[in-house]
Amino acid sequence: MEKIYIIGIGLIGGSLARDFRKLYPKAQVFGIDKTPEHIADAIKIGLIDAEATISSIEEADLVVLSVPVDIASKILPEVLDQIGDQTLVVDMGSTKASICECVKAHEKRRNFLACHPIAGTEFSGPMAAVEGLYKGKTNIICEVEKTSFKLQEKALQLFTAIGMRIRYMDPVSHDKHIAYVSHLSHISAFMLGKTVINKEKNERDIFDMAGSGFASTVRLAKSNPTTWTSIFKQNKENILETLDEYMINLAHFKKLMQEDNFKGVYEEMENTNHIKEILKGIE
Amino acid sequence: MEKIYIIGIGLIGGSLARDFRKLYPKAQVFGIDKTPEHIADAIKIGLIDAEATISSIEEADLVVLSVPVDIASKILPEVLDQIGDQTLVVDMGSTKASICECVKAHEKRRNFLACHPIAGTEFSGPMAAVEGLYKGKTNIICEVEKTSFKLQEKALQLFTAIGMRIRYMDPVSHDKHIAYVSHLSHISAFMLGKTVINKEKNERDIFDMAGSGFASTVRLAKSNPTTWTSIFKQNKENILETLDEYMINLAHFKKLMQEDNFKGVYEEMENTNHIKEILKGIE
Repeated sequence: MEKIYIIGIGLIGGSLARDFRKLYPKAQVFGIDKTPEHIADAIKIGLIDAEATISSIEEADLVVLSVPVDIASKILPEVLDQIGDQTLVVDMGSTKASICECVKAHEKRRNFLACHPIAGTEFSGPMAAVEGLYKGKTNIICEVEKTSFKLQEKALQLFTAIGMRIRYMDPVSHDKHIAYVSHLSHISAFMLGKTVINKEKNERDIFDMAGSGFASTVRLAKSNPTTWTSIFKQNKENILETLDEYMINLAHFKKLMQEDNFKGVYEEMENTNHIKEILKGIE
Repeated sequence: MEKIYIIGIGLIGGSLARDFRKLYPKAQVFGIDKTPEHIADAIKIGLIDAEATISSIEEADLVVLSVPVDIASKILPEVLDQIGDQTLVVDMGSTKASICECVKAHEKRRNFLACHPIAGTEFSGPMAAVEGLYKGKTNIICEVEKTSFKLQEKALQLFTAIGMRIRYMDPVSHDKHIAYVSHLSHISAFMLGKTVINKEKNERDIFDMAGSGFASTVRLAKSNPTTWTSIFKQNKENILETLDEYMINLAHFKKLMQEDNFKGVYEEMENTNHIKEILKGIE
């Protein structure tokens, strides 16, 4: 690994840069980002050595695409146009169907590996990058068979070296399931935050009453709106389905309360309590 | 402090017992609980010295009522009937209007102080009790003026000694606001858990895709159904109001997505992002 290019040097790309710089201290790491402050910050704190442009990535050993998912689908074909024969390109996006679709007929399809590392925090930008973000986390790889053997192996080595578990999945199933276990949580958190802020906007004291339970439930409402608008746009149909089911469940709970059916309310909670076992090992 | 009686020796009462035993090593701590296993566990791990019954609490210096809120409202008058003139009785419940109402005409009203310590975890029972649970947390005290000066002072010393900040509020306002910053979070977490479990019940592998964001958002769905049914029953009207507003906000978000109004989706999230500042100091 001599030359690494990271397109989008925020939390995700920046954290990967930290791990790679430790693993490959001799490698040169370049950043590409449309926000000049991100480049300046990334150089200042040592995430990257210098800024680069897409036209210079022919010589890259590795290109990491860590921009919002709708932008990733737009620029990936252009990136593949520019790279060399041995370059590995990976993306880090939370949706997979669109990015796989956009390069399915590209002559350099075999240089690309579609990835979704299930890792992150509610913060964003290069200053939020942390070493070890990916350690012990799952990386979901889609359409692995469409990547060349040599580059599959290279990617596997890289992700294993930073401590990730690998799972393989098709992109359509990925997008369907991730809507439930990730995307819906973000909507519930944002709307919970909105509900409370709207009600209490003139009573700031009220937040003195909030405990760690509230903080935990709305934590994701701190997330970056650009990143998430892009995900909601790309995974719209799946997310609308999860949102419908969530709203039906809330309406049913409300009805039980209205009818003073507190035996039913109790059962709703008891039936969900085994989330305890499911969450073991995630937190 | 010579004799402390804790009625309901679970997470809340048990954690308080741990702190008090450290503060008053010579005090005797008695437990009253309808579940024999709780008493046995509490004795085994040293939360209490022995079991007691309500008929023996005349000699108590302090009685702590930490049972589900609907039971607290039922037994508090009976507890006040039994205590001595110098006994302080505090409750620890998440709703305050009902408990204040149930003893408003009691001849020993001045021995009671209505409290809501904003502290807890998603676990329950005496084995979940932890030392220091209340440190740095807020204790909301209601109708302080109805408690005798001497017992107000005693309670203030006790809560300050375990590291709590004190806030005073009327019980009706308490129940209205706590519905937003605590009770609604529990419903959103339980229903989010339900939505995902229902969808993925035959695909356990899917939870490998869940990250810390999902875990954080559904954490409260591990909470005790008995405790929470009781709270939902007592604070029904306020909670239904918050639930309506939450569902309206979700429906609006859904409509924006359906209409491909992603500018609107972005703004919804950006407007809620300042929850960052609000949450500072809570987590």
